[in-house]
Amino acid sequence: MALVVQKYGGTSVANVERIRAVAERVISRKRKGDDLVVVLSARAGETDSLIRLAREMTPKPDPRELDVLLSVGEQITVALFSMAVKDMGYEAVSMTGYQAGIITDCCYGQARIHWIETLPVMDKLHDGKIVVVAGFQGYDEEGNITTLGRGGSDTTAVALAAALGADLCEIYTDVEGVFTADPNICSKARKLEKISYEEMLEMASMGAKVLHLRSVEFGMKYHVPIMVLSSFIDAPGTLVTKEDDDMERVVVSGITYNRNEARITVTNVPDVPGMAARLFRPISDANINVDLIVQGSGSTPGVVNMSFTVPKSDYEKTIAIAQGVAAEIGAGTVHSNPDIAKISIIGLGMRNHSGVATKMFETLARENINIKMITTSEIKISAIIDEKYTELAVRVLHDAFELEKEPPGGVMKVKEES
Amino acid sequence: MALVVQKYGGTSVANVERIRAVAERVISRKRKGDDLVVVLSARAGETDSLIRLAREMTPKPDPRELDVLLSVGEQITVALFSMAVKDMGYEAVSMTGYQAGIITDCCYGQARIHWIETLPVMDKLHDGKIVVVAGFQGYDEEGNITTLGRGGSDTTAVALAAALGADLCEIYTDVEGVFTADPNICSKARKLEKISYEEMLEMASMGAKVLHLRSVEFGMKYHVPIMVLSSFIDAPGTLVTKEDDDMERVVVSGITYNRNEARITVTNVPDVPGMAARLFRPISDANINVDLIVQGSGSTPGVVNMSFTVPKSDYEKTIAIAQGVAAEIGAGTVHSNPDIAKISIIGLGMRNHSGVATKMFETLARENINIKMITTSEIKISAIIDEKYTELAVRVLHDAFELEKEPPGGVMKVKEES
Repeated sequence: MALVVQKYGGTSVANVERIRAVAERVISRKRKGDDLVVVLSARAGETDSLIRLAREMTPKPDPRELDVLLSVGEQITVALFSMAVKDMGYEAVSMTGYQAGIITDCCYGQARIHWIETLPVMDKLHDGKIVVVAGFQGYDEEGNITTLGRGGSDTTAVALAAALGADLCEIYTDVEGVFTADPNICSKARKLEKISYEEMLEMASMGAKVLHLRSVEFGMKYHVPIMVLSSFIDAPGTLVTKEDDDMERVVVSGITYNRNEARITVTNVPDVPGMAARLFRPISDANINVDLIVQGSGSTPGVVNMSFTVPKSDYEKTIAIAQGVAAEIGAGTVHSNPDIAKISIIGLGMRNHSGVATKMFETLARENINIKMITTSEIKISAIIDEKYTELAVRVLHDAFELEKEPPGGVMKVKEES
Repeated sequence: MALVVQKYGGTSVANVERIRAVAERVISRKRKGDDLVVVLSARAGETDSLIRLAREMTPKPDPRELDVLLSVGEQITVALFSMAVKDMGYEAVSMTGYQAGIITDCCYGQARIHWIETLPVMDKLHDGKIVVVAGFQGYDEEGNITTLGRGGSDTTAVALAAALGADLCEIYTDVEGVFTADPNICSKARKLEKISYEEMLEMASMGAKVLHLRSVEFGMKYHVPIMVLSSFIDAPGTLVTKEDDDMERVVVSGITYNRNEARITVTNVPDVPGMAARLFRPISDANINVDLIVQGSGSTPGVVNMSFTVPKSDYEKTIAIAQGVAAEIGAGTVHSNPDIAKISIIGLGMRNHSGVATKMFETLARENINIKMITTSEIKISAIIDEKYTELAVRVLHDAFELEKEPPGGVMKVKEES
């Protein structure tokens, strides 16, 4: 008998029929003797329609009141779900973020969980009930309702699993697990049996939208094994867990891409101290996230070129800021290119293997794909290329690193991990 | 400077435009220096659509979870309303039933308020904020969400006014106040300037759906002056308050009617002890509310006829029960008639005036309207007549008691009442 926290996303509970299907799945697990805490998101589209409603009221909704409004979405789902379970003859009880004791800071719209009062949930579990918790929401120490930001239900689930000392946290979603690459553009992509927290963090932040970034951080910090699996297909998923020896043997675990960035270059920036700060201060003040930064030599001695990437949505705003700064500091022109993609290869094994970067560059060169910027971390290498080569780059890299092959080490059992 | 609790019903906050209009009205009152607590219902139709959603999930939704679901309706309104007020430059804060400290028993769907922790609301009032409370909801001592039943937002408002020691509770609705009769069928109907709690109770229970019954009881118990007025028209409303000498001078204050009942008669019931209990026990066990009961002599000595009225919606179920009992106890046949109406005249002054009933009967007789059943209380006389005479009966009684005339005593100021 294990204590399992399960989380179902918006598409899994999109309507009455799907909620009923999830209830059946949960009950069949309960019958096997496990204790269950079920964390639910709002029905697909619900949060967006609540945001639209708020915008109808005022273009700039008050953050506190927006959270009061948005938290309604998950409250509806947990009530409906608990009705369904009870209708099938099992005991269930819904809990809002408040009732489940999820205490956060007071950053409305992006609150962070401070701690969890586990007694209310424990009590209901001891009564043999399936505990159904509204994801995405909590309350601050003054009793105000807060929300955790997009994808926050994943964080609710992993945090609850950590606080309750659960054996496993299962994240049910509309994909079957974590793949070596996007199966939509790479037919040879293979579902990973397991992946380390560190790799998953790089995956999540690179746009493999399987798990919310913060939930992975939470899992890593508190050693919660997280299983990602499909709520529609009955198949084994991917276990996100702490690294083990098997993992080390795999050089590259996956390939990701991101087409949502744009590149900006400021030419002939005077090569004196403080120039980078002058350029990036007003950009960060405008709440624009700069991702890659590369500084190269300029056209004459004493000047350098600064290239960086920002989200496409902030592209034009950033150009205006950069042009202003360029004029102030006596730099050259501002070039820009929104038609780029970032391709990344990720793997724990890189730490112990040399030549991974070279292999990546050679593979791309063989296809005449020009690399415009490069950045590396301990377990990741990213290259900026022309957007039109995205799919090709993913496929040739997938082949080059032989990701379609099963890694050595055999099938891993979940139980051994917990 | 006064402390005023205002309540706005579902039609007053039906959409974004109306919510904004209510926000403007509240702010203009705030500018005059009053402290304001605003209680809001769910948007018109919202509660019904949530109930439909629950029924889609299961024909018999679990009561606890249904309350979790339904409480969402008011939470949406208070969030949107508070956004609107803040958008107009004033301070507002929304509170759910839980946050506003409204503690109830645990009768889901029809919870009664036990007490109110006023500190949270008081705190926000002291900060100069407009406090916006979700009506219709509270929580029990174990922290479960409860709802107060249909029309419960009126009760929330009056209970809050009582607990906070407010000077006045204003109930904004889609009618202008309490009338001497339904203006839709009696063109001479006059808006009452004031009315006693007792009369209002009789009005409310008779189908003048202006104020929720329990809110009037609450107001009477804690001496809360309640002003009923329109949220669409800027006109003085009707004050519901404790009786004063002026009121005593008016014999009849209003006339109501109810077309939602049906009459059932069991003939030739043996005239021995226990027969009424045998008949009405299975009816009340079926949760059917019997209103009027009249027992008259039967066709032969030793038997009696029992007539009673039930809601039309329970009509056929009641006939089946009555037929079963009649067979068991050896009574005669069961007659029934769904085409009836109950006409009532209500007034504190009846206590000190004789001949009111006679005048009522004579007035109806003059129009050849046959009276089928009669029942009286200290301040009310009701008669059951053929449904087709409803409008006529209301109009002739309105004329007979000269209800179109202003009562003596002049205009009363609200301030003197508080």
